[in-house]
Amino acid sequence: MTRKLVPAPDVPVPDILRCAYMEIQVTDLKASREFYVDVLGLTVTAEDENTVYLRTLEEFIHHNVVLRQGSIAAVAAFSFRVRAPEDVDRAEAYFKALGCRTERRAEGFVKGIGDSVRVEDPLGFPYEFFHDVEHVDRLAWRYDLYTPGALVRLDHFNQVTPDVPSAVKYIEGLGFRVTEDIRDGDGVVYAAWMRRKPTVHDTAMTGGNGPRMHHLAFSTHEKHNILAICDKLGALRKSDLIERGPGRHGVSNAFYLYLRDPDGHRVEIYTQDYYTGDPDNPVVSWDVHDNQRRDWWGNPVVPSWYTEASLVLDLDGNPQPVTERSDRSEMAATIGADGFSYTRKGDAEQGFKLGNSL
Amino acid sequence: MTRKLVPAPDVPVPDILRCAYMEIQVTDLKASREFYVDVLGLTVTAEDENTVYLRTLEEFIHHNVVLRQGSIAAVAAFSFRVRAPEDVDRAEAYFKALGCRTERRAEGFVKGIGDSVRVEDPLGFPYEFFHDVEHVDRLAWRYDLYTPGALVRLDHFNQVTPDVPSAVKYIEGLGFRVTEDIRDGDGVVYAAWMRRKPTVHDTAMTGGNGPRMHHLAFSTHEKHNILAICDKLGALRKSDLIERGPGRHGVSNAFYLYLRDPDGHRVEIYTQDYYTGDPDNPVVSWDVHDNQRRDWWGNPVVPSWYTEASLVLDLDGNPQPVTERSDRSEMAATIGADGFSYTRKGDAEQGFKLGNSL
Amino acid sequence: MTRKLVPAPDVPVPDILRCAYMEIQVTDLKASREFYVDVLGLTVTAEDENTVYLRTLEEFIHHNVVLRQGSIAAVAAFSFRVRAPEDVDRAEAYFKALGCRTERRAEGFVKGIGDSVRVEDPLGFPYEFFHDVEHVDRLAWRYDLYTPGALVRLDHFNQVTPDVPSAVKYIEGLGFRVTEDIRDGDGVVYAAWMRRKPTVHDTAMTGGNGPRMHHLAFSTHEKHNILAICDKLGALRKSDLIERGPGRHGVSNAFYLYLRDPDGHRVEIYTQDYYTGDPDNPVVSWDVHDNQRRDWWGNPVVPSWYTEASLVLDLDGNPQPVTERSDRSEMAATIGADGFSYTRKGDAEQGFKLGNSL
Amino acid sequence: MTRKLVPAPDVPVPDILRCAYMEIQVTDLKASREFYVDVLGLTVTAEDENTVYLRTLEEFIHHNVVLRQGSIAAVAAFSFRVRAPEDVDRAEAYFKALGCRTERRAEGFVKGIGDSVRVEDPLGFPYEFFHDVEHVDRLAWRYDLYTPGALVRLDHFNQVTPDVPSAVKYIEGLGFRVTEDIRDGDGVVYAAWMRRKPTVHDTAMTGGNGPRMHHLAFSTHEKHNILAICDKLGALRKSDLIERGPGRHGVSNAFYLYLRDPDGHRVEIYTQDYYTGDPDNPVVSWDVHDNQRRDWWGNPVVPSWYTEASLVLDLDGNPQPVTERSDRSEMAATIGADGFSYTRKGDAEQGFKLGNSL
Repeated sequence: MTRKLVPAPDVPVPDILRCAYMEIQVTDLKASREFYVDVLGLTVTAEDENTVYLRTLEEFIHHNVVLRQGSIAAVAAFSFRVRAPEDVDRAEAYFKALGCRTERRAEGFVKGIGDSVRVEDPLGFPYEFFHDVEHVDRLAWRYDLYTPGALVRLDHFNQVTPDVPSAVKYIEGLGFRVTEDIRDGDGVVYAAWMRRKPTVHDTAMTGGNGPRMHHLAFSTHEKHNILAICDKLGALRKSDLIERGPGRHGVSNAFYLYLRDPDGHRVEIYTQDYYTGDPDNPVVSWDVHDNQRRDWWGNPVVPSWYTEASLVLDLDGNPQPVTERSDRSEMAATIGADGFSYTRKGDAEQGFKLGNSL
Repeated sequence: MTRKLVPAPDVPVPDILRCAYMEIQVTDLKASREFYVDVLGLTVTAEDENTVYLRTLEEFIHHNVVLRQGSIAAVAAFSFRVRAPEDVDRAEAYFKALGCRTERRAEGFVKGIGDSVRVEDPLGFPYEFFHDVEHVDRLAWRYDLYTPGALVRLDHFNQVTPDVPSAVKYIEGLGFRVTEDIRDGDGVVYAAWMRRKPTVHDTAMTGGNGPRMHHLAFSTHEKHNILAICDKLGALRKSDLIERGPGRHGVSNAFYLYLRDPDGHRVEIYTQDYYTGDPDNPVVSWDVHDNQRRDWWGNPVVPSWYTEASLVLDLDGNPQPVTERSDRSEMAATIGADGFSYTRKGDAEQGFKLGNSL
Repeated sequence: MTRKLVPAPDVPVPDILRCAYMEIQVTDLKASREFYVDVLGLTVTAEDENTVYLRTLEEFIHHNVVLRQGSIAAVAAFSFRVRAPEDVDRAEAYFKALGCRTERRAEGFVKGIGDSVRVEDPLGFPYEFFHDVEHVDRLAWRYDLYTPGALVRLDHFNQVTPDVPSAVKYIEGLGFRVTEDIRDGDGVVYAAWMRRKPTVHDTAMTGGNGPRMHHLAFSTHEKHNILAICDKLGALRKSDLIERGPGRHGVSNAFYLYLRDPDGHRVEIYTQDYYTGDPDNPVVSWDVHDNQRRDWWGNPVVPSWYTEASLVLDLDGNPQPVTERSDRSEMAATIGADGFSYTRKGDAEQGFKLGNSL
Repeated sequence: MTRKLVPAPDVPVPDILRCAYMEIQVTDLKASREFYVDVLGLTVTAEDENTVYLRTLEEFIHHNVVLRQGSIAAVAAFSFRVRAPEDVDRAEAYFKALGCRTERRAEGFVKGIGDSVRVEDPLGFPYEFFHDVEHVDRLAWRYDLYTPGALVRLDHFNQVTPDVPSAVKYIEGLGFRVTEDIRDGDGVVYAAWMRRKPTVHDTAMTGGNGPRMHHLAFSTHEKHNILAICDKLGALRKSDLIERGPGRHGVSNAFYLYLRDPDGHRVEIYTQDYYTGDPDNPVVSWDVHDNQRRDWWGNPVVPSWYTEASLVLDLDGNPQPVTERSDRSEMAATIGADGFSYTRKGDAEQGFKLGNSL
């Protein structure tokens, strides 16, 4: 495979603070609102006939999610907040220098957000950068509004892209740092986690057919909050929205749960990764054959989690074409014909666990 | 199939307090001790070359588990404590009246336990009844000894037997009450839960080839204690000892985890079922096709959990022969060729979940 | 002091299952409803203009609390469920044999409860015994209804009475067993905990001016549920309803919190005591000078907790006169002029903690 | 009072990453080691006769605490990590420009730390800045080493200084940002919280006689971990090491506990504050009369917490003289003769709580 390495342009890099919100196109706004508001308990900052703006309990910017009614299920924007207004200029210049299509709107693309630039990035993803934003009440102390599964922060995005090393190169150029990755002995990179804020990631690159959106992730305070979401889905007879987990990740060391919204957009609920803010923060590389890398308890990953993901839109609102991954797939490496995995390195023994046979 | 209904004898029933301990034969005592003591953190009350006596942190009787070195992996006794010394006499008389082989030992069968009777019950299980017992320190307040996954009580046994309705009849005769069961529309009973102490069960009857021991279960205080056991197994690179879970049961409403000890004996870690002590406590019957009955979150049950179980010994220490279940199996009803299951009753739709296809 | 020992009558004792509900007279039903329903999240089974019937999430009988509008704040009934209808007869006969005033109502005293007897017991408390009760939905699996501080069971009552040894004698005659108590070297008993169901208590006798109701207690599943109640009270700017805690009890080993309802009735939130169902369950006696008996962490007990309690009503609805305790008071023994307490027995050293000086 | 405003020098500011470790002088190293290692479970990275180097489970730098045997109890260094080696030069130049005494050691002052500068800062505190550090294993995944009260990160320092506004001015000059503070209507500032990493603080300035060290704080993952530390201290009969809490802070919204080590050095255990990394992160100002600012549940602050703190050392190892605060004290404002506090603003009513009278 020929890597399409994108050389980092020789212009200043915008100072990105964090992943801030995702704009998601949904095909049944009422059903989506029910999922995100009634089930997950996100707070409605604002809404109109076609759009719902949602935030987490500890957030003070206008929203972390925009749900917008559309004809197909897809992601319209992965939006990052930058440190200063001038960083929006820098972002625009940076992506222009990369040869990417950009669109700047002084009044913003969505309610609550001011001057922004949206780009079709070298991997085909719709990235947005903004600084100006409407402040709203941080509800952190409003325990009267907390539910048992309270979501307190947007933690990260996760993107599917065919060529992970190239994607990492590009995103490192944009100032992100790798914290963890999954590799094999042949040098194939299956996934990588990259951060701006000092957590394990603001976004991750997952190897697969792309560009597609793998998931967006919200944080809870504690693990029982995540279990409470599962219990509630059971009570609502919506347990089939639980795709994978709950469990403990190997990568990131966080406790996790994956849900699918009514359009199949994947949502992770996540808690307790670690501080990564030092420049020499040790990168953790996991062997793709390590049975505990994706689930520390060795529980199997459901195939849909490897294969399904959401389309992303270009700046005209049309779905980006999806390119197949030519590198080996992680699912094949794990569970394919010639796949093998280990719990203890060097240990050939196979147990009774489904994880070994899947 | 002809039910082998055992008529309850017309003699007084012993007043059983609770499941008290299990005597387990293991093939590598050192490996078993490591699992139960070093990994699970049970307290050693006493031990010698061939035997280890273990208890939970809130227990005040001598032990909840006896591990005994033997040539095969099997269960030597399901032991129940009775209210008064005379209840041991009643138990002996009761099982004699049932035509069962019994053995009485005034000095007890194991260290720490006094006058006891052991029986080969009508289902082929080695049951024991005792009252006299050596008291030891209840370590409930010894938080300096607690581990993150601290086991505080023995909660219940679970037995595999081919004919569940007959088994229920027999055990109800012995004074147990059914709290929950799993059935289908044709009247097949797949499993039933029975209690003496006012929790969901002291033992359960699981339909399958038997007599075999399905699992014994220890309680923790909270759900995070169970997650901590998984995390520790991951750290020890023993995650393949996790067979199923963690998850929320439909039946019992408890939070659960299933492990396999080095001999494959199954151990459940369990927390938070409900009070069942009123005589009119409502029995909860679950439809075998309800995808949330075994796991409230609809996560699939690994096949080994349905099929594998431990042999039990007769009073001479020889394994009891195993009779095949002739009633429909729960695994077949759930995941077989003509199997079907539902999340929402009447809903034909199939999701992406592994749970639907397994 | 002359003990007014009440000889146990020579008639059969009713078989009491458990504390079942308390009928509480409140002076502002709207304010009380807000506290018990909107703040604590109890479920309304039924209500009318003057009465609200409330239950916990795991309860299947009609209610655990009756709030009734009245002119003064007081307790109208401590109600216990008995095993069989005939146990109501036995209870009536038992208290008549004790020379107590009794009142029997075949149709019950409150909605949802059938044939009952209410008595003015030898200590002056309004006790009720019933078996017939309307079943309602057990909401244990309705996680869509759970709040972060979900109350799942009624756990116990706590009564204030001047002469604890006499009270214990009386209640043991009624079939209760002592699980723990607080004493001093002079033989003074300050408090005792007594159970029917196999937890630490169904009721406790606290030494003080009485008869008065010290508190009623609800269980949560986990400790974080109790913390969530505190957080919510803070958010509602009602933190002054928190009287004591949260903390870990020495006695009972449970995690606790004490609140005061709008009338000052004290409510405990409680979780994780231990199994006490064996007849030889070891009684734990605490030294009144042990600084960790009431709070395992040695945090001070607020004086109001020792001195304030609710009046109780006679069968005509008039408040029972309160008799002063003549035995030494626990508060005086702990924090009085000649009081002393220890963290380590024999250790004279005094730390910086408020607990030592209060 | 005349503010001793220290003008920020016109030289580049070092880029400080985070509070990294504290060097603490202790008078009985064995007793201190027992507290920090056996009770709190910190990991020993290295030790010799006079020194113990300790770290938290998620740390990858050599240590977060140095315990050093000395003749008096005092703090030898508040140490911050900077982004790059040149930031040590910048720190040295910055404090020289401030007219402060500095000492540079290329080989570092303590084991595991390379090139460092220590300064006597304008407030009299011994600050250290370093970049070079020995990496050690991050034990985050080593759940076999976790205790129920596992400490996973060093979170912050807290310093006592007489003149908070001047201290804030100085530390803002050094690149810190205020996240919260406590004030009154007369403009008196009682305390302020300042961060580099995006949590509520890396250090706080508490108004009082100083320079003194108020506390250092470690993070746990969840609230139950903090409760487990209390439970363990009770079991060890060391509950008088619990000075204040556990509770929920108003300021920071974190769950907290304050302990005192064998020398009286105060240690906070802390969990769950919020993300503060945006430049326009809203500052939260609390009214000193708000009864929920220090404890969200309105529980009283023990007087020692306001008045006691540790001496700090100059670069020769001699204690810095302590200057009295001339501004109003927070304790006086809260509980003094003319003190008053509120739960609901404008509400004159006083409850039964100790918090109102203390």
